[in-house]
Amino acid sequence: MHSLLKECQTGIPKAIRQCAKEEGLAPERLFRAVVLGRVTIPANPLRRHRTCAIGEGCRVKVNVNVGTSAERCNPDLEVEKAKAALDNGADTLMDLSSAGDIPETRRRILAMDAPVGTVPIYEAVRRAGSAADLDTDLLFRVIREHCTDGVDFLTLHCGVNLEAVEVLKSDPRILPVVSRGGAFHVAWMLASGEENPLYAEFDYLLEILDEHEVVISLGDGMRPGSVCDAERMAKTTEYLTLGKLSKRAFSYGIQRFIEGPGHIPFDQVGHNVRMIKELTDGAPLYLLGPLVTDRAPGYDHIVGAIGGAIACLHGADFLCMVSPSEHLALPRTEEIVEGTRAAKIAAYIGDTVRRGHEWQMGQETGMAEARRDLDWERQFGEAIYGGHAREIHERDGVLETCSMCGELCAIRIIRESFGIKKTDRERGAGRD
Amino acid sequence: MHSLLKECQTGIPKAIRQCAKEEGLAPERLFRAVVLGRVTIPANPLRRHRTCAIGEGCRVKVNVNVGTSAERCNPDLEVEKAKAALDNGADTLMDLSSAGDIPETRRRILAMDAPVGTVPIYEAVRRAGSAADLDTDLLFRVIREHCTDGVDFLTLHCGVNLEAVEVLKSDPRILPVVSRGGAFHVAWMLASGEENPLYAEFDYLLEILDEHEVVISLGDGMRPGSVCDAERMAKTTEYLTLGKLSKRAFSYGIQRFIEGPGHIPFDQVGHNVRMIKELTDGAPLYLLGPLVTDRAPGYDHIVGAIGGAIACLHGADFLCMVSPSEHLALPRTEEIVEGTRAAKIAAYIGDTVRRGHEWQMGQETGMAEARRDLDWERQFGEAIYGGHAREIHERDGVLETCSMCGELCAIRIIRESFGIKKTDRERGAGRD
Repeated sequence: MHSLLKECQTGIPKAIRQCAKEEGLAPERLFRAVVLGRVTIPANPLRRHRTCAIGEGCRVKVNVNVGTSAERCNPDLEVEKAKAALDNGADTLMDLSSAGDIPETRRRILAMDAPVGTVPIYEAVRRAGSAADLDTDLLFRVIREHCTDGVDFLTLHCGVNLEAVEVLKSDPRILPVVSRGGAFHVAWMLASGEENPLYAEFDYLLEILDEHEVVISLGDGMRPGSVCDAERMAKTTEYLTLGKLSKRAFSYGIQRFIEGPGHIPFDQVGHNVRMIKELTDGAPLYLLGPLVTDRAPGYDHIVGAIGGAIACLHGADFLCMVSPSEHLALPRTEEIVEGTRAAKIAAYIGDTVRRGHEWQMGQETGMAEARRDLDWERQFGEAIYGGHAREIHERDGVLETCSMCGELCAIRIIRESFGIKKTDRERGAGRD
Repeated sequence: MHSLLKECQTGIPKAIRQCAKEEGLAPERLFRAVVLGRVTIPANPLRRHRTCAIGEGCRVKVNVNVGTSAERCNPDLEVEKAKAALDNGADTLMDLSSAGDIPETRRRILAMDAPVGTVPIYEAVRRAGSAADLDTDLLFRVIREHCTDGVDFLTLHCGVNLEAVEVLKSDPRILPVVSRGGAFHVAWMLASGEENPLYAEFDYLLEILDEHEVVISLGDGMRPGSVCDAERMAKTTEYLTLGKLSKRAFSYGIQRFIEGPGHIPFDQVGHNVRMIKELTDGAPLYLLGPLVTDRAPGYDHIVGAIGGAIACLHGADFLCMVSPSEHLALPRTEEIVEGTRAAKIAAYIGDTVRRGHEWQMGQETGMAEARRDLDWERQFGEAIYGGHAREIHERDGVLETCSMCGELCAIRIIRESFGIKKTDRERGAGRD
């Protein structure tokens, strides 16, 4: 049993109190959610870093993926991206490196002050040479290494089993598998004819995760890679398996979250989110996107923000950043920034609904007042990305209004018509 | 009565057949929607240009605003922006010029091959010197001039009446009015104590619009300018007035659409859209945004895309582009491009739901197949903005996969595992 859950048997652990404070929640409420498995707090005890609570009632969190690939293998650049992600509000990082000195890159990402996740099978396949050449011992060895390095959560595609492969064949999809980890497991099963060891030896896996206090992120290896494939049965077959594994993991005392699709039509996001939540007893749900159309490569950060916002409305707790270069290329730092910002805005929009009216008004009133007062400094302060807003506003000079309407500014006209007085703040700034 | 509606009395007009063809709809279906006032086709007979059908059952359309302001008055730049908007898929344009030679700028925008809208009160106020100095004759004179110049639809804030001003006072908002046209009317009413002439003399206004075959866009001068103001009564008071005016206009034979908010919390977009639709007998609904948070200036194109997509799900027919510089500055050309693309993607996502499953599959299958086949040329062809996608993909060289996963590409691995053969197309490209 994870020590956090063990500590819960005798009172409210410090980590929960700390997260509750950050979330603005009563510690008792967060405590109950953790005990019920509806909130997960990833924190490998080998590292001391900022953590966060992920799940029901908490702010929606955003993960940002970085990592080397064979075509673009520059660990310095990946570290730079990770920093840029954190500077722009990323709550967690995942290192998806699949080339170069993978352990060294991982350790550099682990040096950062945030929960970090990995996908051990990427390194295992790299070391084996190919997915077909993988062996179970190597995979478990790599998993242990990630745990002892201090990784907080591991994506493990335990639901990609022989049954799922059969369903892929009986109810085929245009794109059979688009999850990299999922594809490795399928290739391995097809080559060996044997069951996925992460599924077959799930209890052994739980022992490792228990020993190292590492959270399991139950990967969605069968996620649809096209909205056209979203209604095929492989996805739901995997949901059912993940639901069973989620219950087993939590009853073992292992904190977990569930990964969800993927490419899903806009009007199907809601029921997919609710279905996964139902099948997993409300485990925290981590979504990749979802992307609600395939046809906007180059703008998948916007597509993901649209899908992510609606997903949060239905219960998603954790969004994975999608960069503008998704499906096209390894992202550059500026694309990580744009993707992180789009995901954070979607998550925040989700929060405005999840946290309720009073919370929303508390968050938003300052900007409305700042706009009423034409108080630009306060507007930049209230903005989620105020520095960027300032750059746009000030490029046309420091104006009382903005260059869109200028002197015909509706706010200025109405202030005069309604006799709204300048605030002390404005007078103090010598604008009278 | 608009000649389009008159022609409907004897059969299906040519304009309807043409639009039906573009929409992939049966002409009879579009005909019924036009006759019932649920679809509007703006087309001033003084110009010959491409038009489009806006409303129920049709593709969601996107409008792009351009126009000079006192602080940034460069008609050449506004024409450049209008061209960029059309190049990126804008369905209509609005010229919101409020400085310089307004009629000349308007005529240059009207020379373009798209339906064009304006807001006559901007020019009227500029000519009067201020909103308080406006007189009724001048406003109607400007309206006539816009009609005779060939404008297709006019935004007229007929619902901003004395009753709405009273409600503004009795149920105050942080930002009383943020619509520029709305603010002019309120200032005018407060200065004169008299009713808004566009409301008081609505029938006269309809006569002008009838004579010139111009569509009325019933402006939402009371739209909330902050999500914090969305539940105040001014907005709904105006909805009720617009509902009555919409019925009067259509029973007079004038085609119309309705403008809707504005800043609305994410979970309130749906019922606002449905409420306006209900009150206006399903008139086509044109939304500004909606913006579902105030706190992301610099990223309002993304906020607007999130709000717009959900609005389309509930029945919005026509989205106004929001640029990244909204609330901050007059947009640059590149921001018009980004804003147009974000809005078009949101509109398309709305379409994927509105047009039904078969239509969606027809739109999306090509990209799924192209991805399965690692056929990049076809992917760029299927992408809404393929040129941009190509730029991102090819910056890392022309690769078989993409530089995200490289040789560990899930699609490539699964193709090999499943023995998916290369297509003729791929072999033809000599990739074997």
